[in-house]
Amino acid sequence: MEWIGFAAALCTTFAFVPQVIHTWKTKDTSGISLAMYIIFVVGVSLWAVYGLLVHDWPIASANCTVLFLAGSVLVLKLKSLRS
Amino acid sequence: MEWIGFAAALCTTFAFVPQVIHTWKTKDTSGISLAMYIIFVVGVSLWAVYGLLVHDWPIASANCTVLFLAGSVLVLKLKSLRS
Repeated sequence: MEWIGFAAALCTTFAFVPQVIHTWKTKDTSGISLAMYIIFVVGVSLWAVYGLLVHDWPIASANCTVLFLAGSVLVLKLKSLRS
Repeated sequence: MEWIGFAAALCTTFAFVPQVIHTWKTKDTSGISLAMYIIFVVGVSLWAVYGLLVHDWPIASANCTVLFLAGSVLVLKLKSLRS
């Protein structure tokens, strides 16, 4: 059963890679919800803090990765709003 | 420390609500990566199955909720590609 959790974690962590590439290339962020990415980045940051506090390194490292990826989409969205 | 995990789960689960509303209202899905939502929905489904198999109801219920929300965005994206 552990491999299901591992495969699940791989998918939900790296799913954001194609979104970062898509947003980076097209700069098309109108369809992306700013509220979603703000709430999501806050949530993933809390998960990373939680993982560090309870010394759960898989949770901490997976969420640090998602934080970098979803954070990149958020930065691109904020940049497009300013320009 | 548990409240941090609870707050984290709330954020990462309900972050998709504003995205569903945004996509539903605007039908603007060009900036949304199809690959992201396919991989993410697969991952969240695997998390839900994993939660059910190990009898972890918080993991199962949270991921069923995200599956419904992210799945809605995926359906709207697929509909816009067909039209």
